[in-house]
Amino acid sequence: MSWEDRLVMPNGTKGEYQLAGNTRYYKLIAQPAKHQIVDDVNIEGLGFNGMIPGPLLVFRQGEMVQIEVENRLDKPTAMHVHGLSKPVSQDGVPEIEPTPSIKPGQSYVYQFKAWQAGTFFYHASDPAQIAQGLSGPFVVLPKEDSPENQFMPYRDYVLFLQQWEIPQDKLGEITPGTFKPKKFDINPNFFTINGKSLPDTEPLRTKYGEKIRIRFINKSSGSHSMHVHGHDFQVVHVNGFPRYNWYDDTINVASGQRMDIEFMSMNPGIFPINGAKTFHQTNNGKTPGGMITKLMYT
Amino acid sequence: MSWEDRLVMPNGTKGEYQLAGNTRYYKLIAQPAKHQIVDDVNIEGLGFNGMIPGPLLVFRQGEMVQIEVENRLDKPTAMHVHGLSKPVSQDGVPEIEPTPSIKPGQSYVYQFKAWQAGTFFYHASDPAQIAQGLSGPFVVLPKEDSPENQFMPYRDYVLFLQQWEIPQDKLGEITPGTFKPKKFDINPNFFTINGKSLPDTEPLRTKYGEKIRIRFINKSSGSHSMHVHGHDFQVVHVNGFPRYNWYDDTINVASGQRMDIEFMSMNPGIFPINGAKTFHQTNNGKTPGGMITKLMYT
Amino acid sequence: MSWEDRLVMPNGTKGEYQLAGNTRYYKLIAQPAKHQIVDDVNIEGLGFNGMIPGPLLVFRQGEMVQIEVENRLDKPTAMHVHGLSKPVSQDGVPEIEPTPSIKPGQSYVYQFKAWQAGTFFYHASDPAQIAQGLSGPFVVLPKEDSPENQFMPYRDYVLFLQQWEIPQDKLGEITPGTFKPKKFDINPNFFTINGKSLPDTEPLRTKYGEKIRIRFINKSSGSHSMHVHGHDFQVVHVNGFPRYNWYDDTINVASGQRMDIEFMSMNPGIFPINGAKTFHQTNNGKTPGGMITKLMYT
Repeated sequence: MSWEDRLVMPNGTKGEYQLAGNTRYYKLIAQPAKHQIVDDVNIEGLGFNGMIPGPLLVFRQGEMVQIEVENRLDKPTAMHVHGLSKPVSQDGVPEIEPTPSIKPGQSYVYQFKAWQAGTFFYHASDPAQIAQGLSGPFVVLPKEDSPENQFMPYRDYVLFLQQWEIPQDKLGEITPGTFKPKKFDINPNFFTINGKSLPDTEPLRTKYGEKIRIRFINKSSGSHSMHVHGHDFQVVHVNGFPRYNWYDDTINVASGQRMDIEFMSMNPGIFPINGAKTFHQTNNGKTPGGMITKLMYT
Repeated sequence: MSWEDRLVMPNGTKGEYQLAGNTRYYKLIAQPAKHQIVDDVNIEGLGFNGMIPGPLLVFRQGEMVQIEVENRLDKPTAMHVHGLSKPVSQDGVPEIEPTPSIKPGQSYVYQFKAWQAGTFFYHASDPAQIAQGLSGPFVVLPKEDSPENQFMPYRDYVLFLQQWEIPQDKLGEITPGTFKPKKFDINPNFFTINGKSLPDTEPLRTKYGEKIRIRFINKSSGSHSMHVHGHDFQVVHVNGFPRYNWYDDTINVASGQRMDIEFMSMNPGIFPINGAKTFHQTNNGKTPGGMITKLMYT
Repeated sequence: MSWEDRLVMPNGTKGEYQLAGNTRYYKLIAQPAKHQIVDDVNIEGLGFNGMIPGPLLVFRQGEMVQIEVENRLDKPTAMHVHGLSKPVSQDGVPEIEPTPSIKPGQSYVYQFKAWQAGTFFYHASDPAQIAQGLSGPFVVLPKEDSPENQFMPYRDYVLFLQQWEIPQDKLGEITPGTFKPKKFDINPNFFTINGKSLPDTEPLRTKYGEKIRIRFINKSSGSHSMHVHGHDFQVVHVNGFPRYNWYDDTINVASGQRMDIEFMSMNPGIFPINGAKTFHQTNNGKTPGGMITKLMYT
């Protein structure tokens, strides 16, 4: 099984692509999207291809990235891939850079080289659109002939961390319904992994003896302190750059950061993988809930 | 003097234990507890053995841990030791794991190996109980025959960091009384070290020429940026794992993290050891106060 | 051009000093100060020499620091230089240490050795005065004969990060006027680099082929996750201590911390340098704005 096949976004999906020579092409449509965070709580946010977060885009190191962004919003947008340095015209922050603003109804094709293997993410340039959901994971796998492939993990999970400020009546209870998230996650009350809160997070499955990689990606207004129960781990990459001899059990993933960890599945059971902040382990103050998924041995 | 005798929790106390062969047994009773944070401000929270935070539990690496938890609350509880990987049945998060929920009036004895030397903490599995105080420090000292003992610090201080959201009338003033902390520390206004805020924090005493270790433990919904005045330090362990050549003066202790620092006492005086966030240096906005203790030469 | 000449604080200014032998003397006057954060939004805060943040103080490693602080406030004050360990009498936290409190109308001359090269900052000891603006950058450059001078950056920028809670009518709009910042930055709505928010931040200028250093300094109640577009970088110092082989694109600068990064200018254009937290990229929720400056090739 190739590394690309091993790469999984639980609760999420990989984008469909077209490969032409060395160029991999994806299409992302920015549009309003309704999304269920947890049973009874839905949001009317903004998504790429109708998904919150957007689909997982995967590339091989050395490929040419081609992403067409179509704007079906009522305001201009643009797309920035965070990390993975690229020419300014393709960097996607038109408020500051000489790079196109995509008007409603229009499209633009971003093109740049996936020169660096690592974990990245894409998002709208306008922070107000990001806070409504316009962001998603972006992973560059090592070249086919890279020595890194010898150490390929058996399973490679992408966990995209977000937080939301959703109108609710009372802390400790859930008011069911469909809500427009507040403009920014200043006082967040819902905390998601790949768009879902416990108990709706899909477990990360493993078997005894497998090497597991988890890629944490944080694009929110807060930091998330991620903890794996029952398994110490190594931090192997931060923001696409390798780290060595960094053993840990709880890591601080600050806004904009991506941390890749690896461990051996040697302790059978069902264990939480969670943000350590106490309030983040709730759905609007109701427990159990929040930024928690499970490592589940099969 | 043994390392265990050198290990101190200012304003706190070590738990009493029974040693039977290689097994060290502690008893923790989860119960409502009244606690004074600072003069005039008391909380009606939840404590282990009536203390907020709970007593310091100490083990030697290689010992078998035995902790009996008795539930005198009106709701189920369970106890998780954060870090120190262990079998899932003893991991203590019944909301997710196949591990017992302890009903009111019942007890459970957790048992696992203290295989890893380092700084850890224990807490209730329900985040709402944690935010009311159900947590405490847990330290595993190196084996008697470990080479680490040659570098034993002269004093070894445990500082448990917490924050509280306590009903108060007005920012900048203290409304005296006894209060039930709000359910979560979302908008915290009191910041404690071992349960106390300045001026009620007990100083860390030292003499010229001593090597001092401080173990910072953070179980809260925020991160704490800890600074020692007058003394640069080395970070020697993070989350129970050694770190090397890490010199520093201000470290970010994220939620769930534990950082051990060491320095030589070479600069006589009385110096603050404090969280660097400005508001955290107050008691509900009143100064001086907050997450500040003192290093005091004698 | 000397390293000192290459050191620049955009939107800010270097303090004027007198050199007598090996002693460098600066004068700082603590006084009320009116300051423009961004067009239409002014604050009535507290500044050193009328500036928010205060002027950049520069020293050469090995020099004797002499800073006279004159108090023209209506309350006592004192000045602490964060980091750079010094005798307790000169450490400037009279609430805790045996060091002078400077009464209104009085002055005090702090004196200590700049033994350590690195990035530091100075601030009032009272956190309520800090949150009103009483702080500024403090840099010690390596000795003239240090081998570090061989690796002198071509340009060396100091970016002082702050956040403010300013009374405003409605999130997403700017209410023009002159405001007294709230006592603490608990729910901040303006985010500044050297006292200015986008679009009023002065770009960092560079040419192709230059080595650029940026010194991020954070004295606020939050952490700031700093990202440079289009340029991966190395973290070369944290809190005045060297770091090696630390490649990155997004770093968490916690409260009280200083991180120095370096990169080569090899990707011409105009790129954002910004805090990654989405809300921090706004002025009271209005975009574009916030803790964003530009790297601009000329």
